[in-house]
Amino acid sequence: MQIYGNFGSGNCLKVKYIADAIGLPFELREVRSRSGETGTPEFLKLNPAGQVPVVILDDGRPLAQSNAILRYLAQDTRFIPADRYEAAKVDEWLFWEQYSHEPSVAVARARVVYDKQAVSDLDPNLVMQGNKALDLMEQALTDRTWLVGEAMTIADIALLPYTRQAPQGGFDLSGRPALLRWITACENQLGLPAFSAEN
Amino acid sequence: MQIYGNFGSGNCLKVKYIADAIGLPFELREVRSRSGETGTPEFLKLNPAGQVPVVILDDGRPLAQSNAILRYLAQDTRFIPADRYEAAKVDEWLFWEQYSHEPSVAVARARVVYDKQAVSDLDPNLVMQGNKALDLMEQALTDRTWLVGEAMTIADIALLPYTRQAPQGGFDLSGRPALLRWITACENQLGLPAFSAEN
Repeated sequence: MQIYGNFGSGNCLKVKYIADAIGLPFELREVRSRSGETGTPEFLKLNPAGQVPVVILDDGRPLAQSNAILRYLAQDTRFIPADRYEAAKVDEWLFWEQYSHEPSVAVARARVVYDKQAVSDLDPNLVMQGNKALDLMEQALTDRTWLVGEAMTIADIALLPYTRQAPQGGFDLSGRPALLRWITACENQLGLPAFSAEN
Repeated sequence: MQIYGNFGSGNCLKVKYIADAIGLPFELREVRSRSGETGTPEFLKLNPAGQVPVVILDDGRPLAQSNAILRYLAQDTRFIPADRYEAAKVDEWLFWEQYSHEPSVAVARARVVYDKQAVSDLDPNLVMQGNKALDLMEQALTDRTWLVGEAMTIADIALLPYTRQAPQGGFDLSGRPALLRWITACENQLGLPAFSAEN
């Protein structure tokens, strides 16, 4: 499998995490949105939406949208619950992540890390939406280890990258103990080093 | 099954369309975001994200996120392809819809229909994003009847409501013949009357 994208992008990291977790080898083809590489005619053939990640499956067919890729790669593995209701709750988190988490938590971080905007200059509405998303996760994780069921699923994998990097966008996780505990549990499960906002 | 929501919302309409298509009876519990009814403690117990639709399954368990609901209700029906790659392409459209279509096409319409904003006063970036999304669909549908495979899937059902209502947000579909043909095909398949922007 080939992954078109870059591991500075949380959406691309999700694909790396699931591939590593299930022992699926891949080759990274570096593509960066910020340098216009997702707007070339060649790339738009793979994904007309002009977004990374895109994977090229071993039969040569492309698949885009990080969470669609997670679902495809994780099918028949322990990262998607066999129980249909639990699998649907995983889907609920995947759609919530793309609609209510990424557009604020990841975008605020991108403004700071890539656009060199000061945290104090961020759009207050963006910061408010990001905090709301992180609060919802904190509440959900208060009395449970994983977002769905009793083991890590692709819901956790989808939420991990941008939540873990949230402090780089000025979000304070120190008052969110359940979230910090969950990040550590995910890191342990995936064999990642503890994240530092200075990384 | 109970649907919490209202059929002024395209996200809620998706659930009605799939339920009608597969012959699943439901009861509508009217809930409107704009009158604050999705922010009550009772509603937040069903969906902490405070969004409609939420369905209550026959065993009493809640499920939120329109596209997660579509996937759950349509499993083992003809509206999700049996082929795994085609099913993944359906997922690709579902995630694209929530990330790149709804936030512009539906939001522009809401500004006009509910907030009574003039089309000419809409945020140009919102309009540009909406046109980009509609152009992508037009391109995808130019040489095919359905978004994925040879029959209607939940990808079509997810994209239909807000695309069909797009003219209410000032989007001109007249230069997008493939999109108009697809809307008619969907309406025929679902037994809906032809849509008029004045409805």
